[in-house]
Amino acid sequence: MERFFNGLRGDRPARSAMSLCRALMGERGEASGAALARDALAAFGALGAAERAQFFDVLALEFSPSAEDVDRAAAAYRLERSTANLQRLQRAAEPARQELFRRINMAPGGTAALIEMRRELLAGLGEHPSWQAIDADLLHLLRSWFNRGFLRLERIDWRTPAIVLEKLIRYESVHAIRGWSDLHRRLEADRRCYAFFHPQLPEEPLIFIEVALTHGVSARVQPLLDAASTVEDPGHSNCAVFYSINNCQDGLRGISFGDLLIKQVAENLRRELPRVRKFVTLSPIPGFRQWLAAERVHLARGPRGEERMALLDALERPGWQDSAAATPLHGLLLPLCAHYLLRAKKGTEPLDAVSRFHLGNGASLERINWLGDTSEHGMAISAGMMVNYVYRLSHVERNHERFVKEHHVEASREVEGLARESPFAAGETEAARA
Amino acid sequence: MERFFNGLRGDRPARSAMSLCRALMGERGEASGAALARDALAAFGALGAAERAQFFDVLALEFSPSAEDVDRAAAAYRLERSTANLQRLQRAAEPARQELFRRINMAPGGTAALIEMRRELLAGLGEHPSWQAIDADLLHLLRSWFNRGFLRLERIDWRTPAIVLEKLIRYESVHAIRGWSDLHRRLEADRRCYAFFHPQLPEEPLIFIEVALTHGVSARVQPLLDAASTVEDPGHSNCAVFYSINNCQDGLRGISFGDLLIKQVAENLRRELPRVRKFVTLSPIPGFRQWLAAERVHLARGPRGEERMALLDALERPGWQDSAAATPLHGLLLPLCAHYLLRAKKGTEPLDAVSRFHLGNGASLERINWLGDTSEHGMAISAGMMVNYVYRLSHVERNHERFVKEHHVEASREVEGLARESPFAAGETEAARA
Amino acid sequence: MERFFNGLRGDRPARSAMSLCRALMGERGEASGAALARDALAAFGALGAAERAQFFDVLALEFSPSAEDVDRAAAAYRLERSTANLQRLQRAAEPARQELFRRINMAPGGTAALIEMRRELLAGLGEHPSWQAIDADLLHLLRSWFNRGFLRLERIDWRTPAIVLEKLIRYESVHAIRGWSDLHRRLEADRRCYAFFHPQLPEEPLIFIEVALTHGVSARVQPLLDAASTVEDPGHSNCAVFYSINNCQDGLRGISFGDLLIKQVAENLRRELPRVRKFVTLSPIPGFRQWLAAERVHLARGPRGEERMALLDALERPGWQDSAAATPLHGLLLPLCAHYLLRAKKGTEPLDAVSRFHLGNGASLERINWLGDTSEHGMAISAGMMVNYVYRLSHVERNHERFVKEHHVEASREVEGLARESPFAAGETEAARA
Amino acid sequence: MERFFNGLRGDRPARSAMSLCRALMGERGEASGAALARDALAAFGALGAAERAQFFDVLALEFSPSAEDVDRAAAAYRLERSTANLQRLQRAAEPARQELFRRINMAPGGTAALIEMRRELLAGLGEHPSWQAIDADLLHLLRSWFNRGFLRLERIDWRTPAIVLEKLIRYESVHAIRGWSDLHRRLEADRRCYAFFHPQLPEEPLIFIEVALTHGVSARVQPLLDAASTVEDPGHSNCAVFYSINNCQDGLRGISFGDLLIKQVAENLRRELPRVRKFVTLSPIPGFRQWLAAERVHLARGPRGEERMALLDALERPGWQDSAAATPLHGLLLPLCAHYLLRAKKGTEPLDAVSRFHLGNGASLERINWLGDTSEHGMAISAGMMVNYVYRLSHVERNHERFVKEHHVEASREVEGLARESPFAAGETEAARA
Repeated sequence: MERFFNGLRGDRPARSAMSLCRALMGERGEASGAALARDALAAFGALGAAERAQFFDVLALEFSPSAEDVDRAAAAYRLERSTANLQRLQRAAEPARQELFRRINMAPGGTAALIEMRRELLAGLGEHPSWQAIDADLLHLLRSWFNRGFLRLERIDWRTPAIVLEKLIRYESVHAIRGWSDLHRRLEADRRCYAFFHPQLPEEPLIFIEVALTHGVSARVQPLLDAASTVEDPGHSNCAVFYSINNCQDGLRGISFGDLLIKQVAENLRRELPRVRKFVTLSPIPGFRQWLAAERVHLARGPRGEERMALLDALERPGWQDSAAATPLHGLLLPLCAHYLLRAKKGTEPLDAVSRFHLGNGASLERINWLGDTSEHGMAISAGMMVNYVYRLSHVERNHERFVKEHHVEASREVEGLARESPFAAGETEAARA
Repeated sequence: MERFFNGLRGDRPARSAMSLCRALMGERGEASGAALARDALAAFGALGAAERAQFFDVLALEFSPSAEDVDRAAAAYRLERSTANLQRLQRAAEPARQELFRRINMAPGGTAALIEMRRELLAGLGEHPSWQAIDADLLHLLRSWFNRGFLRLERIDWRTPAIVLEKLIRYESVHAIRGWSDLHRRLEADRRCYAFFHPQLPEEPLIFIEVALTHGVSARVQPLLDAASTVEDPGHSNCAVFYSINNCQDGLRGISFGDLLIKQVAENLRRELPRVRKFVTLSPIPGFRQWLAAERVHLARGPRGEERMALLDALERPGWQDSAAATPLHGLLLPLCAHYLLRAKKGTEPLDAVSRFHLGNGASLERINWLGDTSEHGMAISAGMMVNYVYRLSHVERNHERFVKEHHVEASREVEGLARESPFAAGETEAARA
Repeated sequence: MERFFNGLRGDRPARSAMSLCRALMGERGEASGAALARDALAAFGALGAAERAQFFDVLALEFSPSAEDVDRAAAAYRLERSTANLQRLQRAAEPARQELFRRINMAPGGTAALIEMRRELLAGLGEHPSWQAIDADLLHLLRSWFNRGFLRLERIDWRTPAIVLEKLIRYESVHAIRGWSDLHRRLEADRRCYAFFHPQLPEEPLIFIEVALTHGVSARVQPLLDAASTVEDPGHSNCAVFYSINNCQDGLRGISFGDLLIKQVAENLRRELPRVRKFVTLSPIPGFRQWLAAERVHLARGPRGEERMALLDALERPGWQDSAAATPLHGLLLPLCAHYLLRAKKGTEPLDAVSRFHLGNGASLERINWLGDTSEHGMAISAGMMVNYVYRLSHVERNHERFVKEHHVEASREVEGLARESPFAAGETEAARA
Repeated sequence: MERFFNGLRGDRPARSAMSLCRALMGERGEASGAALARDALAAFGALGAAERAQFFDVLALEFSPSAEDVDRAAAAYRLERSTANLQRLQRAAEPARQELFRRINMAPGGTAALIEMRRELLAGLGEHPSWQAIDADLLHLLRSWFNRGFLRLERIDWRTPAIVLEKLIRYESVHAIRGWSDLHRRLEADRRCYAFFHPQLPEEPLIFIEVALTHGVSARVQPLLDAASTVEDPGHSNCAVFYSINNCQDGLRGISFGDLLIKQVAENLRRELPRVRKFVTLSPIPGFRQWLAAERVHLARGPRGEERMALLDALERPGWQDSAAATPLHGLLLPLCAHYLLRAKKGTEPLDAVSRFHLGNGASLERINWLGDTSEHGMAISAGMMVNYVYRLSHVERNHERFVKEHHVEASREVEGLARESPFAAGETEAARA
């Protein structure tokens, strides 16, 4: 420990925060109720960025398990496979940090502070690999505390407090909310917004999803986002289009809420609106053009390689969708996109992150929509294409199982057919990286 | 596993509950949202007592760690002390049961069901030592989930829903509540009742404490419990007497809430009623007469041994407190009780369980009250004596520390003086077991 | 006024309360916010019974309209029928008391205090006829303030605060609630209890109704009241039996809530439990035996007069229902009761108060139940008979209209038939007082 | 009535709404629960503007009292001054419309609909003088229903639902709220906003007030309105500045809430922030320049008349406050404004509406602030001047009384002194219209 004290010498605030942490782990901590936890948290909160880094450096080491204790407990367990010995090993291998965090959590605002602490840790992990040990402990605790059983699904609407609504504006990153009137339109009768909350953070959505109630499956996102559009009667809709889902808490990264949110929202909507029979996303294809660029060299080969290169060049010209190139590009890009979604892989999983998420949840790939998102961003990432993934509640378990075990991508015949028309499939050129 | 299936053969319900648990841990469990958790819980809930025992038997074995995996991970960690290796060992040593319980917790009512499951486990532990492994996992999770930071301190009064109030009647075991009018009196303006609740169990108090706001430190409990007594103005009181504290959930045994409850209630009362300056208990002495019986042989010796024996015999006669024996018994028992509380030990800690609790919390032993509890129970356990323990918020940390490190019992001069007058101290007889 | 001052001389508290009322009506009252109203209310609250009577005596006179002002305004209106003149007359005829009460209502607890004031007024009206003027003003205001639009229908169950539940116990006067377990049974899954509340009196039910969800129309009340009876699944019930309805606030006498309560509860139940198709009461017949005694002289005449007298004498012997007289009494009393309900009148309305209420609401008389209420009270008022009134929501408007305009009593054929068998109908004896 | 039926002939919707109203007043209305009220309200809601006018025309006549009944009741009362006769007269003089509105109020949303109905009535009163009769009845009922005792004072902050907050933006007319960030700044820690709500209209503020917590009395409003200003610690403030108060419901015009709101907010703030000792407004002077224009002819006379005219001409040039005219204008306008506020009258009351309101509430005129509001509007109405009125809670009753009885304007010595320096006071010119 000495060298850390040396390290902290001259750095009073970090030392003092650390000694409060030590006191919190000792007799005083046990008898103080939540008072010492509050003090330790306040001391940590008062640290500047550099001091926090020092604090984390000490934390990564000081509250770690003793290697000798672990070895001893492992040896005892090897000799006698008793429950008691196993538990002793578990205890020996568990860093004291976990208990420290549990005690800090007793302070008012403790949970929020730990989430914020982890956010900072994650941001500094690249530079400070030793913090990985701290992160592992925080993740372990937060995953346990943010168990689905403790979350509350709440509908967000115009009756929701402004302090929550402003967070939707801040956290929406799929289709940015352009101010309060835009937000208001997204909370009208033909829209739904739901979020998960934790009882400890009643004003902080953990994740939220935006849904449009429509007649038929939406192929284009701009009409859904149009703040000036007419509000429709939700009683007439037969389809729920999930058009945006956003995680809000960086400090909870790695704890997955999206899958459960989608499924519970679908269940709730089915109960509330029995005429809504179809639950479908309108999703971006974030990796398509990046993949396309990487495949360019392959696409250049073969019989119609030059023609393809000319078309791909046309794609670089803003407004191409209104030019003569639009039709041939449609003929080229749709099959390529189907190929990308069905066959391009990262290991055994789909290369596209959004596709990976929905297919992993048990959804199936229903349709590729040409010019589904004509925003600058949409054109840049996927040449304007979007995807509908369908959640058939009776199929998700089976789809998920085949996805995990057989790496199977469940898709409609239409999409399958498109993929077969792609240059790669047709053998016109070398196979894309599978 | 085969022998368990054999064991379960012919016993469909337990097998089916178990196979739902297995499914819950597999791919289907991941994709099902909370549906499978709900099914597994329902299947478990439908089991009869014998089937549950079989279910627990399987659970104790099947979801345990693989000894080989643990050994392998321990060996890897011995070779390289990396964070990654430590985490691998932690994971290997963690029973899959914990994940199973985390998934069950996702079902509606999951937390309550797990607490009930542990209650049953604890009840059967004597007969089924193998269930200890299950209990350890449940305790680990519940302790994490019922962290003080997640609990809510709520005041209980006559505005509280009846569904909560009836639980006070059921769970009060220190001074039984004799029906709703008795309860009503305990919730009047000069009384306070507080409980900890968990957000998942909004109608289930975890622990509750009953407080009387008095003028001066109460020496006798019967006046406090008198349902017909006049309600006093709490604005005139200068003392808060904690006269009953009760844990409500057997399934949370081993997770301590009492210390935190007392301290937070004291803080809240100090804020609400600034004239209340003294926070004191009026507590039973559950082990006194049992200890006295065990010490009888020692007390019989020495100069006045026969006289003492005659007095102790008088104690067996109901109504002795109104007899001629009362005065000499007062002279004998008070010093003996002081001796018991200050010197009788179990290991290094006080022999008396209530004393152990309050002194361990950092309270100090203030006064012994002759005929403090003249109920049948009070006479039976402690010859009617009760104790006031004082919580001086500025002293509790130091008291706790000395209690833990030096086994020091903090007591008033009066009690110390009494102890010095006891037959043991006076050297009249052999020393009591220290 | 002088004589009242004389009357009040030496009686400081009533004078001081009155002068606060005067101040409240003057400039100070306008500028004081609610402070003066609070003071006036407190001064009134501190008055003893005799002082209150004096206060009311002054109030009945002092804040009344000036007869000259009224005459002048009436004359002006006779000369010119303008809206302005009509309003002047309305203002002249409105006692200043109404404004006084409106200002008192601004104080915290003002509404509750006015209701309590009226309760006392009504209790003293017999002795103090002049208070009638005060009562008229209070009734006018309270009727306006307790308009149905401001009331909230709330379900009462075991989650309701005890402070409300204890009021059900206190106010239930149809079938007394014998303590908290009896109450608990009445709030189980196969029972419903609803009450109207006013926002100003959140802990004071104005009226409440108790409903049993049954299979088939209940003919006997004792099984419904049995606290030890098994709780049935409400999903299997097809009938809602209203077995008790109670007004709670004497100070709101004359403002009718019962009709609206029954109809709204019926609507809510129909929505919640679509299998419940029948809404029916199980009601007492409070006036039957009193009427029977009055008709005795008529019944004694005619061919079988002596036989009837013997039977009616048998009715005086406790336990007659288990004696040999039971069968002939059944044959005699059922037709007489039908006659009583269909033909015995007070003016143009049914003589029986409960019958008047339900028929006036548009219900119809469905069935008379022999030994429907075998409690001491039930035997005493109606020889144990009870009635089912049916609320057919589609018929209530028409029934009510015929009841009001044609004095028509809507009854089932069965009841009509029974009435035709009665001694009066059969011409065996003189017609009962119609 | 006939001519109205003629009037309505061919105009089905208005006739149908009216016949539902008639049914509501008859037997069906009594038996229908709230159903008929709901229908009548819906029918009225479906009327177009012209149809509503016809509906109101009928309503103004048809549900009015019978002149003969009134005369008869008045005559009876003249003969015998009994309570019963007085009540008969009150009933005869009360239009059936009041009962109609009471029944409509029973429908869900009834209260809101009646307020909206009155808003429309008031807007059409100029063109339709006969509607005055309807308005009088609505006002009578609404004043009774919106008694202060039924209102809830609620603090509005960033936790308030957006549906309420957007109404602040809409209804603020003193200092317009320029969007959500402007609103957010007005709800920060050093600001307060309070509103009165009625239980029937939980999302509709009736009136709201905006307060700045400051150090010292604010003389200028622009710094208070600056959305970019630093948020101060409210614990350091010693002054509460009421800088905006707004009525929200046109349909409640004539029912005064402002006086009570100011006084209760002052009381609440004093409790919450004991260091805040001064409660003061920063108010516009809406009538000053209009009065000044009317007085121009007088000011032109006398020794320095020409000089004054030149200065008043300078006032017409935008930016004069930064020109050389600013200093002499300061010397001229401040005394004139003091004169205007102290001496210019409408009858016996101050000519300035805002002054009339605050002085009538019992506030006193503390200070005139040069360039207190440099917005375009502020310059246009009062040459940029603003006033601080002080609410000294211990003085308001006395001030109000002197204001009402003696027409006394309570002002600081400073303002009194200024008024004495005005051209009128100095005798330099003819006296301004008093």
